Amino acid sequence: MKKFDVEKIVNEIIEFIQDYYEKNKLKGVVIGLSGGKDSAVVLALFVRALGCENILSLWLPIHSSEDDYKDVLALAKQYKVELKKHDLTLIYDNYVEDIKKINDVKNTDLLNANINIKPRLRMMTLYYYAALFSSLKKQMYIVAGTSNKCERYVGYFTKGGDNVSDINVLTNLTVSEVIKIGEYLGVPDNIIHKIPNDGLSGQSDEEKLGVKYSDIEKVLNDYDIDFNIKDKINKLHENNLHKFNIPEYMGQKCD
Amino acid sequence: MKKFDVEKIVNEIIEFIQDYYEKNKLKGVVIGLSGGKDSAVVLALFVRALGCENILSLWLPIHSSEDDYKDVLALAKQYKVELKKHDLTLIYDNYVEDIKKINDVKNTDLLNANINIKPRLRMMTLYYYAALFSSLKKQMYIVAGTSNKCERYVGYFTKGGDNVSDINVLTNLTVSEVIKIGEYLGVPDNIIHKIPNDGLSGQSDEEKLGVKYSDIEKVLNDYDIDFNIKDKINKLHENNLHKFNIPEYMGQKCD
Repeated sequence: MKKFDVEKIVNEIIEFIQDYYEKNKLKGVVIGLSGGKDSAVVLALFVRALGCENILSLWLPIHSSEDDYKDVLALAKQYKVELKKHDLTLIYDNYVEDIKKINDVKNTDLLNANINIKPRLRMMTLYYYAALFSSLKKQMYIVAGTSNKCERYVGYFTKGGDNVSDINVLTNLTVSEVIKIGEYLGVPDNIIHKIPNDGLSGQSDEEKLGVKYSDIEKVLNDYDIDFNIKDKINKLHENNLHKFNIPEYMGQKCD
Repeated sequence: MKKFDVEKIVNEIIEFIQDYYEKNKLKGVVIGLSGGKDSAVVLALFVRALGCENILSLWLPIHSSEDDYKDVLALAKQYKVELKKHDLTLIYDNYVEDIKKINDVKNTDLLNANINIKPRLRMMTLYYYAALFSSLKKQMYIVAGTSNKCERYVGYFTKGGDNVSDINVLTNLTVSEVIKIGEYLGVPDNIIHKIPNDGLSGQSDEEKLGVKYSDIEKVLNDYDIDFNIKDKINKLHENNLHKFNIPEYMGQKCD
């Protein structure tokens, strides 16, 4: 089994962030906090790399849980970063109402379509704040992504939503590696070990996916695993490849 | 000079679309119409490839011009495709009002940040309709991108906005090639030769970019062109490369 040297990895990530910021004359970062471990670990890493004064964290509720908000408040306090609350619930509700009026459809027709508006409204808002703060503070802010390697592998993200970002530090780290980094950087236990969920459906991520993150990790590491589970995970992966490879007509061939 | 065989290219694009649709069991397409040439040409190509009954075109005004709407109506009528109007103006206005209230900022602070909300709201809405129509019609709809090669080269698009799409047919065609295809497919002259603008700032795209599309095309084709103009275009290109290459920490190195 590959040894995971958490101190070394954390130092590499910090160096990676600092190098990119220096090379591109950047200064600040915008991070959307969900109350889950991934955004918390991203926050902790950027605080180390840039200093707490260059972090803008955002809580962007859309019918979200107050318990998650409490965890986000505690986290921002612990890491001494600015936290803005921007409630998107009313914008979301009005948007869905417009859809229903214009198309004469019922709530049940909208269930599938509604799922992805939330991460897209949040993406739009993270970028809005990055532009606003770049303008107000006269220094460049960019948006940090929070997806980890396991989510990426099975396509558990929204195209045009949480996959839109300016810098990614977790996309090549598995869930258990993210947890180790979080523990090392002092992210509170209740956040690190919270069962991942979208704060919406009442189901956990794993229930919705139908597979466990620990099993995705086994597939990624090529460990022994039940064939049917492996097959299910790789099918999820293949079915989501379209999110990464957008087909395009390649233009006139040389002939 | 490379000869551009419009009939051959159109046939190749139609084949490209049909192949992708067949391979992925897709049926419909959602296309946002702006009243400009790119979205009109994309519409004309998809009508040929899929038949007018599988096209959903959308007019998504946000303080948009009624003249553009008239052109869009005429276009949808000519190609016999369904056109939905979904006005996003109020959602946009409410969003900006919330930003002002929450951050205690003035309109002038928001100018830069406001520019990119519109394409992001439109992207969200195109995807909403793709999901809604996939559910209502029990057949898969995807979203067509409308960017051309010249816009892509200088980064004239919004990350998380008009660069989010499921299939692209114009991304490797220059402006003059797109115009030739439009003429060949009967897109009305007033649309094909409309001066490209974002329908917002009162400035044309070329005024905002500070360079001409015909000059971008010369750079792309490696034709003779004034050194200073070439330099300006290539600087725009380089400054926008970050929109294509998102930096990510690559994970534990093998050692």
